[in-house]
Amino acid sequence: MIFRQLFEKDSSTYTYLLACEATGQAVLIDPVIDTLERDLRILQDLGLSLAYTLETHIHADHLTGSKKLQAFTGCKIAVPALDNLPCADLGVQEGIPFQLGQIVLHPLFTPGHTSTHHAYLLDNGMQPVLFSGDALLIEACGRTDFQSGDAHALYRSVTEKFFSLPDETLVYPAHDYEGRQLTTIRQEKNRNPRLGNDKTEAEFVAIMQGLKLPYPRKIDFAVPGNQLCGQCPENVPEQYRGPCDVVELPADLRRAYWLGDQG
Amino acid sequence: MIFRQLFEKDSSTYTYLLACEATGQAVLIDPVIDTLERDLRILQDLGLSLAYTLETHIHADHLTGSKKLQAFTGCKIAVPALDNLPCADLGVQEGIPFQLGQIVLHPLFTPGHTSTHHAYLLDNGMQPVLFSGDALLIEACGRTDFQSGDAHALYRSVTEKFFSLPDETLVYPAHDYEGRQLTTIRQEKNRNPRLGNDKTEAEFVAIMQGLKLPYPRKIDFAVPGNQLCGQCPENVPEQYRGPCDVVELPADLRRAYWLGDQG
Repeated sequence: MIFRQLFEKDSSTYTYLLACEATGQAVLIDPVIDTLERDLRILQDLGLSLAYTLETHIHADHLTGSKKLQAFTGCKIAVPALDNLPCADLGVQEGIPFQLGQIVLHPLFTPGHTSTHHAYLLDNGMQPVLFSGDALLIEACGRTDFQSGDAHALYRSVTEKFFSLPDETLVYPAHDYEGRQLTTIRQEKNRNPRLGNDKTEAEFVAIMQGLKLPYPRKIDFAVPGNQLCGQCPENVPEQYRGPCDVVELPADLRRAYWLGDQG
Repeated sequence: MIFRQLFEKDSSTYTYLLACEATGQAVLIDPVIDTLERDLRILQDLGLSLAYTLETHIHADHLTGSKKLQAFTGCKIAVPALDNLPCADLGVQEGIPFQLGQIVLHPLFTPGHTSTHHAYLLDNGMQPVLFSGDALLIEACGRTDFQSGDAHALYRSVTEKFFSLPDETLVYPAHDYEGRQLTTIRQEKNRNPRLGNDKTEAEFVAIMQGLKLPYPRKIDFAVPGNQLCGQCPENVPEQYRGPCDVVELPADLRRAYWLGDQG
């Protein structure tokens, strides 16, 4: 299996590339519209075809790259089925593995950051790997104070669903703001200041209510845009419009990803 | 492959269990004498036979469990060949893979903490895994102020040998004192306060010289004992002697690991 952890600086988002070496097919978990060209170049460099993009949830802090990636690669777009997005090709749900060649991801319904958030558990290496989305971050977690956030639900998602996974499980989050890359279930049980060391649900909810975080700078266009799988809405402010307006690629990538005149 | 990261509290040491599911054979990297019973029980619970213990270096902070484990399991003892220990069954060296069933570990000669230190690189999962010993710890590194330590050598081991590995490489250290479990090459490049972010060799050496660490409490018996593969020397102080004096196991383990009257 091929694996890459990719980072988008403006929103501190990790995108994950997983590919089956036997079939050459790849899936990108939580791609970001700003890194379209980087993602296409990595796929080309590794000789992979993008079969799917896969979202953990409807993001409020960035626009997904799904729609743009689909335009250039013809990939399918997978999202949690509960999101019920007409733009998606596949709805994933807990209990139904998402399979791509030898890659098998088990969706875990983990509401709290949003009401339809899903994490993805991969179990075909020497230890399980959890792509935890915004439900569990390194010594932190996603906020619960906007969209359909619910601190009570997030507490149960993390402590009941994640903390029952093997302690060795590697945890790859959707964000980190301090240059860290991954953690483990045991490490978060031991060190997470909000959720670890037997913090109670009441203590967690109080912590989340006391965070007093600023209003998310992209939420007003990111949420409606992501409900369209990353199609840019009209209200994207000028300073964030750049990635929306990319229709041309560098010549070499344009040749590699030219989908026109095929039908 | 089966993998377990095991922790010994008194010396904050991580021992790693790797086992080949096809053959049922296991190797323990850096076992600690204090956790003999735990290690034997895990092997039994998983239905594994211990084929080897494998040391990264001659430890100054704990006695290895190798000799005791050999007494109960008949395992072979592997150490860096440069240590030239008569008690060892196998000397490992860079360039010659250590193979056990489907497990292949590549020894990396990485002096600096000691002059014969080796790390072990495993490359049969979705990302390489480095067992870094005391050469590279999470946001830290092993000390260089005793035994055959050399800060200049350690700088070159880490920056030339480890930092040329893929950024995604998982790094499992021999110790952590703050409940963390693993890091990555990229994370240490970005965050290691001694070795990351283009610290120069001179800066690193100055940092190491300024640490003013206390004299290691076990060094006077641990080093000579480890040169005997964990055979306890006479000068073990009373408060540390307990693990040396264990010759009896609980009844169930005694039956499982009884090697007597076989020849």
